[in-house]
Amino acid sequence: MKLFTVGPVACYPEVLEAMGMQMMSHRSKEYIDLHFETVEMLQAFIETGSPVFLFSSTGTGFMEAAVRNCVREKMVVCVNGSFGERFAEVARANGRDVVAVVTELGEPVQPGMLEAALEAEPEVEAVAITHNETSVGLINDLPALTEVCRRHGKLVFVDAVSSMGGTTLKVDEWGIDICFSSSQKCFGVPPGLGVGSVSRRALDVSAEMPGKGWYFDLKVWERSHAARKGTPMTSCIPQVAGLNAALKMIEEHGGRQWYFDLYEGRNAAIREGVEELGLGIFPLEGYESPTVSCVSAPEGMKGPDVYNAMRGRGYELAQGYGALKEATFRIGNMGWMPGEYIDGMLGALGDVM
Amino acid sequence: MKLFTVGPVACYPEVLEAMGMQMMSHRSKEYIDLHFETVEMLQAFIETGSPVFLFSSTGTGFMEAAVRNCVREKMVVCVNGSFGERFAEVARANGRDVVAVVTELGEPVQPGMLEAALEAEPEVEAVAITHNETSVGLINDLPALTEVCRRHGKLVFVDAVSSMGGTTLKVDEWGIDICFSSSQKCFGVPPGLGVGSVSRRALDVSAEMPGKGWYFDLKVWERSHAARKGTPMTSCIPQVAGLNAALKMIEEHGGRQWYFDLYEGRNAAIREGVEELGLGIFPLEGYESPTVSCVSAPEGMKGPDVYNAMRGRGYELAQGYGALKEATFRIGNMGWMPGEYIDGMLGALGDVM
Repeated sequence: MKLFTVGPVACYPEVLEAMGMQMMSHRSKEYIDLHFETVEMLQAFIETGSPVFLFSSTGTGFMEAAVRNCVREKMVVCVNGSFGERFAEVARANGRDVVAVVTELGEPVQPGMLEAALEAEPEVEAVAITHNETSVGLINDLPALTEVCRRHGKLVFVDAVSSMGGTTLKVDEWGIDICFSSSQKCFGVPPGLGVGSVSRRALDVSAEMPGKGWYFDLKVWERSHAARKGTPMTSCIPQVAGLNAALKMIEEHGGRQWYFDLYEGRNAAIREGVEELGLGIFPLEGYESPTVSCVSAPEGMKGPDVYNAMRGRGYELAQGYGALKEATFRIGNMGWMPGEYIDGMLGALGDVM
Repeated sequence: MKLFTVGPVACYPEVLEAMGMQMMSHRSKEYIDLHFETVEMLQAFIETGSPVFLFSSTGTGFMEAAVRNCVREKMVVCVNGSFGERFAEVARANGRDVVAVVTELGEPVQPGMLEAALEAEPEVEAVAITHNETSVGLINDLPALTEVCRRHGKLVFVDAVSSMGGTTLKVDEWGIDICFSSSQKCFGVPPGLGVGSVSRRALDVSAEMPGKGWYFDLKVWERSHAARKGTPMTSCIPQVAGLNAALKMIEEHGGRQWYFDLYEGRNAAIREGVEELGLGIFPLEGYESPTVSCVSAPEGMKGPDVYNAMRGRGYELAQGYGALKEATFRIGNMGWMPGEYIDGMLGALGDVM
């Protein structure tokens, strides 16, 4: 099956080789070296001096961590689709009040909407933003939104699950307190690893937070990081090795800008191809995601029909998600993807329509 | 490096091959088949009809889940060493009161101690027991302890991290409500996957529990399980495939009793070997762990000296843990371990003393 999924995505050969390595102790010198080399490459990649933690969890584990460590009562959650909804659900499941800033489906959060919410609810402690909303294939204007948060002095949590690695993230310059992602998206590594940076300010808030639990206690993670012990509980070693291999592969090709250009090229080829087939890209023009295209289903077909027909031809796309399940299907361009796959996929799509 | 670690342990060749597989979508038919085949093999292995969940977390994630889903105020935690202490720490970090039943180091929890605690504190809701305390190389008499819990009508949580797969666990017969482990111990799979069974009774308590969060919400997991959707968030696919391969390998050799006998044989060879070298096994006789031997350091040497000297000869043992770090070192017998490694390791140990 040739994967155009939105995660897990197909993995690079170097990554799969690393995944199959024999184990080592997570307290051995070999692992500690691997761990901190990976952390330092990630810090450089997302432009931060803050510690980066490698959770044995999916990206959602970082949502839980952000809420439990850094919010006592109330937070704003920007919602463009299913993963913004998930952040709100995680906050509510932890007993926090949520002020939801909800857009029409396919539209970005405008800075003015966030500004209005923060003026109406000045006591909120933090703002959660989905950088790239995977469910609708939309990217928000993150620096414009973080600027509003900074001006109001709020903590900023960014769900960068389907953007980190695939497009620019300037964590320190944009003032992001917790910026997290997962291994199985733009880095082209199997799932199981949550990665995220945590600012000094967020750690200081966590230090005073009651009842935050242990598994995702950011201060527990900070202590292990500061003592150069790696992870406080057993590390998800194969995925750390896989991520290390992916980051080195990117470095060898010239660094992150080369990788962003590669993704942009794939994404443009897919968008042009589907538009030539007469299909529309769902989100508002100018806000199309650089990593996943959400495509309106052709006349007379539902999204799941397209998905199933494409599977029959050897291509695994992604189904529409949530409210858009029937009306759309999605085509990811993350991970390992030989150039000729794209032409083949577009040809098959033309055939099944 | 030849591993005699206590986890991560060396992995079987079949498992490493599975770990290196190309990814698939966690919502594809291929993954769903893999998921439920693995779940059903695990259910049979630990003798339960309850659902088994496959968390993207370490085993400690299940401690957090047990506490947050099933305890409102107060629980008993049996403490034989560092991992019992961790369970108590996780409970306290989640704001729960802990009644600790603490043994002398190297001694088991006696049923009478637990009985006395439950009589003194009849309002506790649950009891946590470490089946095999990895830090001191001790196994508790689990059926005797669960019998006490059942008689008092308490929920029973069992940390089976270093016992599941390596020795008999009769989850339903012994009345265990949550019985959990990790991939990187007896099953010989890399770390990143937490596995555990959850009883109807535990799920019913979870249904009424406020503020339990989302990532480890057992009712969220139950819904995905019941709808045959696999995991609610992205699954840690490679480790699931690795565990599937390990369980099939055990099945092909004749099933779990073959595997338990294999471990008992390795463990006996190691214990006899270290005793011939004049070294003592730390825990009380009759309670020695079948998966990890905690050995008193030789005269004039500290545990870490033995660990470092053995590394110099190509053998990775485990250091003593917690209060026993200086006085002991540990030799695991889990995972992939060719028979001749044991003789070689014992020979090297004789040389470094």
